[in-house]
Amino acid sequence: MTYIKKTFFKSILLFFVVCWSSSAQKDYKLWLQYNKVDNDNLKTEYLSNIKEIVSLGKSETSQIAFTELQSALDEMLGKKFENKSITTGDHNIIIGSKESLAPEIQKEIGNFDQINDEGFIIKSISIKNKKQLVITGKTDIGVLYGVYSFLRLMQTNKSIQNLNITDAPKTNIRILNHWDNLDRTVERGYAGFSLWNWQKLPDFIDQRYIDYARANASIGINGTVLTNVNANALILTPQYLEKVEALSNVFRPYGIKVYLTARFSAPIEIGGLKTADPKDAQVINWWKNKAKEIYKRIPDFGGFLVKANSEGQPGPQNYNRDHVDGANMLADAVAPFGGVIMWRAFVYSEHDANDRAKQAYAEFVPYDGKFKDNVIVQVKNGAIDFQPREPFHPMFGAMPKTPLMMEFQITQEYLGFSTHLVFLPKLFQEVLESDTYQKGKGTTVAKVIDGSLNKTKLTGIAGVSNIGNDLNWTGHPFAQANWYGFGRLAWNPYLDSETIADEWLRCTFSNDENFIKPVKQMMMQSREAVVNYMTPLGLHHIMDTGHHYGPGPWVSNLSRPEWNPVYYHKADKNGIGFDRSKTGTNATAQYAPEVEKMFDNLETCPEKDLLWFHHVSWDYKLKNGQTLWNGLALKYQEGVNQVAAMQNIWNKTQKYVDEERFKEVQMLLEIQHKEAKWWRDACLLYFQQYSKKELPLGVEKPTQSLDYFKSLKFPFAPGN
Amino acid sequence: MTYIKKTFFKSILLFFVVCWSSSAQKDYKLWLQYNKVDNDNLKTEYLSNIKEIVSLGKSETSQIAFTELQSALDEMLGKKFENKSITTGDHNIIIGSKESLAPEIQKEIGNFDQINDEGFIIKSISIKNKKQLVITGKTDIGVLYGVYSFLRLMQTNKSIQNLNITDAPKTNIRILNHWDNLDRTVERGYAGFSLWNWQKLPDFIDQRYIDYARANASIGINGTVLTNVNANALILTPQYLEKVEALSNVFRPYGIKVYLTARFSAPIEIGGLKTADPKDAQVINWWKNKAKEIYKRIPDFGGFLVKANSEGQPGPQNYNRDHVDGANMLADAVAPFGGVIMWRAFVYSEHDANDRAKQAYAEFVPYDGKFKDNVIVQVKNGAIDFQPREPFHPMFGAMPKTPLMMEFQITQEYLGFSTHLVFLPKLFQEVLESDTYQKGKGTTVAKVIDGSLNKTKLTGIAGVSNIGNDLNWTGHPFAQANWYGFGRLAWNPYLDSETIADEWLRCTFSNDENFIKPVKQMMMQSREAVVNYMTPLGLHHIMDTGHHYGPGPWVSNLSRPEWNPVYYHKADKNGIGFDRSKTGTNATAQYAPEVEKMFDNLETCPEKDLLWFHHVSWDYKLKNGQTLWNGLALKYQEGVNQVAAMQNIWNKTQKYVDEERFKEVQMLLEIQHKEAKWWRDACLLYFQQYSKKELPLGVEKPTQSLDYFKSLKFPFAPGN
Repeated sequence: MTYIKKTFFKSILLFFVVCWSSSAQKDYKLWLQYNKVDNDNLKTEYLSNIKEIVSLGKSETSQIAFTELQSALDEMLGKKFENKSITTGDHNIIIGSKESLAPEIQKEIGNFDQINDEGFIIKSISIKNKKQLVITGKTDIGVLYGVYSFLRLMQTNKSIQNLNITDAPKTNIRILNHWDNLDRTVERGYAGFSLWNWQKLPDFIDQRYIDYARANASIGINGTVLTNVNANALILTPQYLEKVEALSNVFRPYGIKVYLTARFSAPIEIGGLKTADPKDAQVINWWKNKAKEIYKRIPDFGGFLVKANSEGQPGPQNYNRDHVDGANMLADAVAPFGGVIMWRAFVYSEHDANDRAKQAYAEFVPYDGKFKDNVIVQVKNGAIDFQPREPFHPMFGAMPKTPLMMEFQITQEYLGFSTHLVFLPKLFQEVLESDTYQKGKGTTVAKVIDGSLNKTKLTGIAGVSNIGNDLNWTGHPFAQANWYGFGRLAWNPYLDSETIADEWLRCTFSNDENFIKPVKQMMMQSREAVVNYMTPLGLHHIMDTGHHYGPGPWVSNLSRPEWNPVYYHKADKNGIGFDRSKTGTNATAQYAPEVEKMFDNLETCPEKDLLWFHHVSWDYKLKNGQTLWNGLALKYQEGVNQVAAMQNIWNKTQKYVDEERFKEVQMLLEIQHKEAKWWRDACLLYFQQYSKKELPLGVEKPTQSLDYFKSLKFPFAPGN
Repeated sequence: MTYIKKTFFKSILLFFVVCWSSSAQKDYKLWLQYNKVDNDNLKTEYLSNIKEIVSLGKSETSQIAFTELQSALDEMLGKKFENKSITTGDHNIIIGSKESLAPEIQKEIGNFDQINDEGFIIKSISIKNKKQLVITGKTDIGVLYGVYSFLRLMQTNKSIQNLNITDAPKTNIRILNHWDNLDRTVERGYAGFSLWNWQKLPDFIDQRYIDYARANASIGINGTVLTNVNANALILTPQYLEKVEALSNVFRPYGIKVYLTARFSAPIEIGGLKTADPKDAQVINWWKNKAKEIYKRIPDFGGFLVKANSEGQPGPQNYNRDHVDGANMLADAVAPFGGVIMWRAFVYSEHDANDRAKQAYAEFVPYDGKFKDNVIVQVKNGAIDFQPREPFHPMFGAMPKTPLMMEFQITQEYLGFSTHLVFLPKLFQEVLESDTYQKGKGTTVAKVIDGSLNKTKLTGIAGVSNIGNDLNWTGHPFAQANWYGFGRLAWNPYLDSETIADEWLRCTFSNDENFIKPVKQMMMQSREAVVNYMTPLGLHHIMDTGHHYGPGPWVSNLSRPEWNPVYYHKADKNGIGFDRSKTGTNATAQYAPEVEKMFDNLETCPEKDLLWFHHVSWDYKLKNGQTLWNGLALKYQEGVNQVAAMQNIWNKTQKYVDEERFKEVQMLLEIQHKEAKWWRDACLLYFQQYSKKELPLGVEKPTQSLDYFKSLKFPFAPGN
């Protein structure tokens, strides 16, 4: 063992000893590597189609668009273009917003109405028989998005001839939720600590703030909530607002608005009031003035994200008011300035142990149509809490008169932290494609989110950030793909996750097909792998207490019933699973009839959701003919095998990847494989106590006892 | 204001928008930039003197030495040398330990006895009329140190012809103390959070661990205490020792030993014993077995650093035993394996409010000669606590039969965190040069520390680390110089701080004299500046409560008298200062007679230490003819002016420094200037209440009221 470790380290040393000057950087540069184009034909095509750059805008955003284009082309083609203010000759790239374009060019571009204010058009045109490539939009931000989109073509080695691309984001608010505390710890953060260095702000602007804005702009993210939903009211005091203002000044030219979390009891804590009752005149006034104060500093402040009456957070119910009272009161405060209130639907009562999955729907659906126009209700993708797999949240489609925004979790609270490689866009896509049937077949969650289903004006997608101050931003090099993929899906919820994986790999590593093909496959199967080795067949929330790292199906001693894994798997001698069908809690009734019927019936319920909706006997026959017990055990084994397969794929990529990132991923996959076995052994040993059955052939014998697994403690697990 | 800010940000944006690919890296590379040699003559000299590299060693350390040399020469000279195993032709660089050298080469090198095991010899020799440059030592680590020393010659553009350099460290233990907690917060850490990612260890080896080891090896640091002196016993459990072992495997080839802090009550907390009494057989046995367990994993484990019976930490006194009992018990446990115990002398009683400055001496000096051979007592540079200026600690020289090691604080707990530019080697040098007179004139602190005074076998210097996971390691680019300077002084306590500044600047930024001269001057005056604007004329410990950031001379409400600034400055209508002379606490009696006399007498007491030793009337005439009040006020003003002068110097360096580091330092100096004024105004307004005198001419009027300064709160100040 020790010997193995020694040689293992030796090999690392030989690789890493002096490579910091290049590699550390690669990790940091995310998907904006702008690798040299080494395909000569392609390079020739690119150079022959780019003679000059003509940048017409004058704003900071326009300057960013030009410098981005200039430096990217310099890195990819080894040619540094100057900024020509007037067009001479042909094959220029002309970048500028609609009104900056000469009339004859505008005419060639055609109809700008097909895009919204953030959209762009990339079009090869011919003016006086001279070919030109125009990147334009209605606004400078649109142009910037267009530039990043154009550069992505080159990063992925696509042709740039005869382009005619029209694209625009399908949602208004594409936003990161940072669960960052003022002490720089990050709730559920696994990539170091908060980027926001409050002590040195406002006067010290860390380069990372700019790099962060740049990375987000490159994928179309246009908002960021700087602070934790479990909010501290101090962020709303002048001492901190001055710092927030400084960040907003950095982000603004990149098209990113700053938002804050509002602690509902702030009027008491920092306002000196006796109450935070949303109907109290002083409280209403306090919030109005607070909004004025903020908008005086930050004219384009986005608004507030609120977690109220959830998990002990204060809220309107403390004053016998309801969510509508609370949200609308805040909405009135920010409305004069164009601000929005993102009100979270993640609530579950301390007094109702019946079925936590039903409570958000039960509490919110009756409010449909009662919220002000600038309120949007933020709903997690599933009814419980960011599990490896959950059926789509029944609220989607159930509140036709209320804007609902999606809340995805990019950070992997329940999916192995930043240690496990899990490509989340596959999960996101599964949710967005789910058919709610709320207006008949084909009314997918995506159509609810982008507003097309109910003609909703205010739309959005939020992602709980996985970003920290680790050198590589996200802890795991492949977790960068989850940040990237979230941004791309927020821009277009109909994108295919495989396309996203392909884009990201090419931009981040290499365009070599021998690398792309297998590694893309590895990414695409990674999400099913984690479901299999953690929570197969619809199991959920059986992670260990608090930190949620590793298995804890045996946990049953927590004060609130719905905090205990046993509440969710309900394993007993008869079987396993949570009966949410008619015979159980009837949570299925919260879905549209077609979906309700499908989930309700053991025969039609997809096996991937089986134990989510049904308590099933150990001997129940699965579609593959296996008993439930054997099928469950084989699923756990399959998850372990899938991770082994991922390792085999990655171990063959050495010649396509820099030493450091290759080693990093290799080490992390090794840990993931070890921990997949841990999950398999701990869960099967525990459930076996109830099934009283042998492990089927093909499932490896556990190497440790159940007591050993129960004894494992992680006192300083991050993000907890 | 807002407008100014806007344009300020604009300028930043234009600079930084796309430069991450190069600049972030420069910050990260510390003093190992290996900039291209652009002086052609020099480059020619270097190339003509380096034809080949012949590396004779086979160990990991030898491989590191070669690859370091190879990559550095590649970066500096643009030529990639191969590793020749045999010497052909002339002008080779031959690197290898003594026994790896051919006899005729050994003969040419001469006497190896002039160096110790970590020393090196760099010598230009001639073998069969062929010139060769040999870098050798008794061990491979010595050779590695030699390689770094040789590369430093080139980094600082020195000639490499006819070299004959013999160098060896003057202390055994050159060690960093990381006050890192297991949750990755760092006590008194201002550069982000702990480098040690305990969750991903042992199987994930962060590149930073290797880069950290490399940076330390390049300046001769050979030990690191991974954990906080306010220790958590969990670090001694197998779960964590496995992780510590992984780190030790990374650090070993760089000549760095791992040490841990031992919580004295660990036998109770993790051993299940009822007591931690150092005379208890079970306790003695528990520590013996714990040592065995550790050394089984880490054969070269360095030993334990212990903070006992200090600031609430457990220790032998809890069992009516003394420091000797505690230290020797642990010493016995690690002695069989060659381990050492570093026992801290930083103690002050909760029950003796008389004079905290006297207590460590009073408690420890009686134990002189009573500690086991493998115990070394770690003494802070001054008798209070890492102030901007303190007289040298009276314990130095007062325990001739006991090894004493120095504890410097590299992290700037009381010196403006990582926001203020303060070149600490100037402070360190001042302490090391102080004459204790314990064996007559010239018995400096340095001679105590390097063991030459009392022929001490075990010697060492510890530095409380300023390293965190910030991209630039230390928060402030110039704080890197304090890490560097600490290492250089630990190697040779007689080095001049100006030489260190010169080396560091050349290695880190540029060799251009137009840059070096003024910036070196800026560094050299920076320490006196902070003394002036924070605690001039011997004032001390008047920082605000807990976080120690900013002024708090008014604080008087803390539970223990010696925690309150008023305890230290004792300002009243008669004057200001702590009377530690015969007429006061008689702390001066703890020094040798010559020093005692000097400090005791108001006339001979250096004015820089005046208020440390004397309570002086506001009208007292200073040597410059000013009254104490006017002189004090003018000192505060001088500090502010000195920071302004530092800004003027830095603002002229733009053309010698990369954009990012230039801007970083510029922004930080701006904050430092603002905060120097804050210190001046707050302290003078406060003291003015007692002096009842006007501010003299030349001192700017305060812009805020004393109440305003008192009202400032820093709820989430880092490191607290």
